[in-house]
Amino acid sequence: MNEFALIRQFFLRPAKRVLQGGGDDCALISPRAGQVLAISTDMLLEGRHFFADVDPATLGFKALAVNLSDLAATCAEPLAFTLALALPEANEAWLQAFSRGLFECADRFNCELIGGDTTRGPLAISITVFGEVPPELAARRDSAREHDDIWVSGELGGAALALAMEIANRAAEGPRRNGIAALVERLERPLPRLALGLELRGFIHAMIDVSDGLLADLRHIVEASNCGATISEAQLPISEDVRNLPLSQRRRAALAGGDDYELCFTADRSQREAVIAAGAKADVPVTRIGEITPPDGIRVMDIENRPLDGAALAALSGFDHFD
Amino acid sequence: MNEFALIRQFFLRPAKRVLQGGGDDCALISPRAGQVLAISTDMLLEGRHFFADVDPATLGFKALAVNLSDLAATCAEPLAFTLALALPEANEAWLQAFSRGLFECADRFNCELIGGDTTRGPLAISITVFGEVPPELAARRDSAREHDDIWVSGELGGAALALAMEIANRAAEGPRRNGIAALVERLERPLPRLALGLELRGFIHAMIDVSDGLLADLRHIVEASNCGATISEAQLPISEDVRNLPLSQRRRAALAGGDDYELCFTADRSQREAVIAAGAKADVPVTRIGEITPPDGIRVMDIENRPLDGAALAALSGFDHFD
Repeated sequence: MNEFALIRQFFLRPAKRVLQGGGDDCALISPRAGQVLAISTDMLLEGRHFFADVDPATLGFKALAVNLSDLAATCAEPLAFTLALALPEANEAWLQAFSRGLFECADRFNCELIGGDTTRGPLAISITVFGEVPPELAARRDSAREHDDIWVSGELGGAALALAMEIANRAAEGPRRNGIAALVERLERPLPRLALGLELRGFIHAMIDVSDGLLADLRHIVEASNCGATISEAQLPISEDVRNLPLSQRRRAALAGGDDYELCFTADRSQREAVIAAGAKADVPVTRIGEITPPDGIRVMDIENRPLDGAALAALSGFDHFD
Repeated sequence: MNEFALIRQFFLRPAKRVLQGGGDDCALISPRAGQVLAISTDMLLEGRHFFADVDPATLGFKALAVNLSDLAATCAEPLAFTLALALPEANEAWLQAFSRGLFECADRFNCELIGGDTTRGPLAISITVFGEVPPELAARRDSAREHDDIWVSGELGGAALALAMEIANRAAEGPRRNGIAALVERLERPLPRLALGLELRGFIHAMIDVSDGLLADLRHIVEASNCGATISEAQLPISEDVRNLPLSQRRRAALAGGDDYELCFTADRSQREAVIAAGAKADVPVTRIGEITPPDGIRVMDIENRPLDGAALAALSGFDHFD
């Protein structure tokens, strides 16, 4: 199968909301009146972001979902995406499953594929997503204010625990142990918090999605907003399976575990009821975990309300691709 | 250097024409009133699209230029781009040179970097470009009409010859032979025909950029437009150095050589003077090379005006990543 037949068979669909989809030199899209385009891009590599033998349908779903999470963090509504794909070979069964997972995510979140590129090489997936948002309602990282509450959606640590279990499974000789299904689902098929992002439009201050770990991502808000933060370990919403871990592992999963794709945001104290109502409408729990402070880094209070010391915090630094 | 420091040092610049550039979850852009966004994406891989020891400044320039060529083929004007970059290591000298070449191209064609992603892995570059075009003036592949003239900009075959010379240089033992500077420039720093695309707005029919070879790319027009084409070998604008090659090599470079990034387009016969005037305004030669016919594939007439037979044509099929 050549490159163009491959694209036609697995990836080309008629344009729906966009003016012109794939199949030409360029796609054509336009935001609705009063809105602008929110754009984000990610690259996923085999061995770095996923295992070589990952289920391709799962990979297709996740590759788009993690990009949509950036739209959620901007309060944007999905519109379209492009896909650049490097493949070791044109394996039809693999492509069939990958495109099925990709379009499952695309259809679920109403986002259409409008163009792409395929080439032969080590498996790599680069997606760029486009969403719509009225510019005055787009959430940013640099808008946190002193005394803001800090909130997080859903639960933390599940994806990190699932990954740790998967790595342990792979390291163990003998028959493969089963993971915990809900946790694996969490790692492999994250659900971007798009509905929550839309419900939070207009009254929150700063927002980011938790992809590298809560502390690492909250640090982006704190640095961009020129402020500090104090969060309380006792208040963190932690996945049930993570709660049973020893303290050091639990702490690491909740504060430094990546891949949860929850939203972390700040809002004025007067908005507490509005935030909770937004969570209820979006059917996602929201939990108040701390407060924005004057610029002094991030303090984490342990369950006895004592600040974690520097060594404990350093052990919790988030994932960095070039560290 | 960690991932975020790397992005700040080499890639983060303040937003100019866009609403919000890099450094947040999403960039925000909007086309001007009456225009829509033209979007294209490409992925370049080491060993597939460039040599591992390529000059990184050249690579940075070309990675953006080949994407801008898709905007040119749509008659769009560059606005912005995103960059996803996988790197084996955070080599500062390499990044310095790569970003210099990238921004040289970006500044020359007035296109700003608005976001991206960096990760560690085999060198891979994925760029998505955004241009502006009034939707009714966007050129497409499916709009060729019977009896249209077929035109091509600039000269063909130079990049293919430069690549062949480079491969021969690398295969040869002993000191490296010099290429022909202008040809190597052609291969390594293609100049997207953006000015010509703008001048052609509104009165041409179909257009594509020549990235995989004239025949392969003209075939996309012919198939999308449900027509045929006859082109004349004698009329092809061929790079001077290519003209001196033996017939089979000359033919292959001109008809099947990729990487020239010229524009191939069709227009009504009544527009000949307008096309030539557009070329003059954009300071790019334009050459009439044939005619759109009823649907019957592509015929190539040789210099004695006899059609090339099937075997000769088959030997000229364009580059395909999965053939």
